[in-house]
Amino acid sequence: MGGGSVITLLTDFGTTDSYVAEVKGVLLRHAPGAVLVDVTHELPPGDIQAAQVTLGRAWHRFPTGTVHLCVVDPGVGGARAALALRARGHAFVGPDNGVFTELLQGARIVTLPIPPEASATFHGRDVFAPAAAALATGTPLTALGTSAEPRERRPLPQPRREGPVTVGEVLLVDRFGNLLTNLPASSGSVTVGERTIGPVRRTFADVAPGAPVAYVGSADTIEVAVRDGSAALQLGAARGTVVRVAG
Amino acid sequence: MGGGSVITLLTDFGTTDSYVAEVKGVLLRHAPGAVLVDVTHELPPGDIQAAQVTLGRAWHRFPTGTVHLCVVDPGVGGARAALALRARGHAFVGPDNGVFTELLQGARIVTLPIPPEASATFHGRDVFAPAAAALATGTPLTALGTSAEPRERRPLPQPRREGPVTVGEVLLVDRFGNLLTNLPASSGSVTVGERTIGPVRRTFADVAPGAPVAYVGSADTIEVAVRDGSAALQLGAARGTVVRVAG
Amino acid sequence: MGGGSVITLLTDFGTTDSYVAEVKGVLLRHAPGAVLVDVTHELPPGDIQAAQVTLGRAWHRFPTGTVHLCVVDPGVGGARAALALRARGHAFVGPDNGVFTELLQGARIVTLPIPPEASATFHGRDVFAPAAAALATGTPLTALGTSAEPRERRPLPQPRREGPVTVGEVLLVDRFGNLLTNLPASSGSVTVGERTIGPVRRTFADVAPGAPVAYVGSADTIEVAVRDGSAALQLGAARGTVVRVAG
Repeated sequence: MGGGSVITLLTDFGTTDSYVAEVKGVLLRHAPGAVLVDVTHELPPGDIQAAQVTLGRAWHRFPTGTVHLCVVDPGVGGARAALALRARGHAFVGPDNGVFTELLQGARIVTLPIPPEASATFHGRDVFAPAAAALATGTPLTALGTSAEPRERRPLPQPRREGPVTVGEVLLVDRFGNLLTNLPASSGSVTVGERTIGPVRRTFADVAPGAPVAYVGSADTIEVAVRDGSAALQLGAARGTVVRVAG
Repeated sequence: MGGGSVITLLTDFGTTDSYVAEVKGVLLRHAPGAVLVDVTHELPPGDIQAAQVTLGRAWHRFPTGTVHLCVVDPGVGGARAALALRARGHAFVGPDNGVFTELLQGARIVTLPIPPEASATFHGRDVFAPAAAALATGTPLTALGTSAEPRERRPLPQPRREGPVTVGEVLLVDRFGNLLTNLPASSGSVTVGERTIGPVRRTFADVAPGAPVAYVGSADTIEVAVRDGSAALQLGAARGTVVRVAG
Repeated sequence: MGGGSVITLLTDFGTTDSYVAEVKGVLLRHAPGAVLVDVTHELPPGDIQAAQVTLGRAWHRFPTGTVHLCVVDPGVGGARAALALRARGHAFVGPDNGVFTELLQGARIVTLPIPPEASATFHGRDVFAPAAAALATGTPLTALGTSAEPRERRPLPQPRREGPVTVGEVLLVDRFGNLLTNLPASSGSVTVGERTIGPVRRTFADVAPGAPVAYVGSADTIEVAVRDGSAALQLGAARGTVVRVAG
């Protein structure tokens, strides 16, 4: 089994309309053997932080050489630039709105030209997809545009130390209502808002059904769940809720 | 990279049940190297107009030779015929219920036989998928059935002139609440129902956040959005709402 | 067209988060030419019966040799074992929680080791995906683990005879509100709860719009629908509702 180049797609287009298919049609016309993988198209419309967190968890699981097409683009057609970059053996294509902030260090970056015939509201199809297909078929990055620094950076919220306590926050609530935080793996005692969860455990099964549990999640950061339930609902937590680890 | 034939799928099956996978299993058994692309499976159940609009925006983005499997089929198992057609370098397979009306001009069309062992409620799997796989693997159209004219036609609503005004309507509301109309690209002043939107702009960024904006969309027709919001909600518009362009 | 090995994915991960993509990245790293097909990721969280019914309808539609990755895994990280099996020409990988009960007869089964570096909450990515990729690239089952019997079995509810009546139940409500039962194909008169539906018909079109209809569905079992409506809503039926066929 050979396997063509992989192109992943991460958007807020939803899966009800024709938009994702229009992008895939362009990808397959320009890169006929590419393997297309949806990361998600269900990002909240325009939610760049959700795109960053989701991309950050997914991209490095794919084979070296994968091209990641990331289009959460509320500024489409306006002054924001269009980017393609190579970082850590992967390629990334999308708007210059901060979505790639965590990937810029050591990256080679170009600004993509916007062809005059491109739709002013659908650069995903008319600008980013052709660039992603070109990268997937071996076109060098420097052939796609001119070397540039991104204008927009959006560092994700970072945890801070307060004496023996590390103070972080919920970056994303997942489908199960689990709270994904920015706190690094640790073994202390966790609180969500004013609510004490207890020590960091190994897995859900370490508490009773219906009980909250903190654990080191699959991205090596602290997560909080309710076994067989929703931590977001039961703890009244959402993105931005403060989470602390003591000791 | 070679790349097998592309088969797209457009249905109202949803993505919760086994139906889409059953169709894909049949496709991959009969056309092992085919590349399967979901257009959407989230069409409102039985909504043929939504299928027409979505298909109309997507099919021509795919490579020549792509097979489009379109199954919105409230009349399954009844008297309606099953069709396969070749038009403009692409192939289409689905029920004779009007979904292909816009593609019939110049098309070569056959009626597919319904094998006696086909489930009376799932022609997508038992009739249309085998036909799509056959086309994707090079079987000539005429080997699949007998030449025929479709019985059912459903022309999409067309805009009309009223003096200096072109009167159209909303054909589809997309995920973002944008209004996709049947009005051709134009530069006049747009109204939605009784509400004045203003002149046709280039993109969302040409108005303030929260303001409505009319623009020539990515299908070269007039669309109406609310920047960073939902035009459908803010303007109280839905499919069928009258949209006018003056001048 | 050759076509790589097919791997299907059936999970309760949803399609909003990075989880499915993380699994697919691992699959494509270990089995670069594999063809990945989503069965669904929208199973109700932890719903093993829904997984069984959905898998049971889908797996045998795929080519011989397909690998089915099934991860509905509320007990992840706890004492439950991890399984891979070969049955009826297909392979299956997932947790030992009963999801494969209907496939065990005549199957060859191994228990997969849990590597110490595996995340305690994401065996789909760290245990099951590598095993599925190994099977898809030709690794023999016995090289993946030690021969074992599953500990957990969950037979699906079976219909029973009461004189001339066969008494079954709703196993799953589908997207359309159709009731999928465990009653075998039959031609008697059907009741749902206390409500008489009438004789088994051939298809929806055999009743008037808005009327309920029983028919032999595409899995050769009795189903109950409302033409152009939802049987679940109109009949107040849900999973477990009793359905009878008389005569």
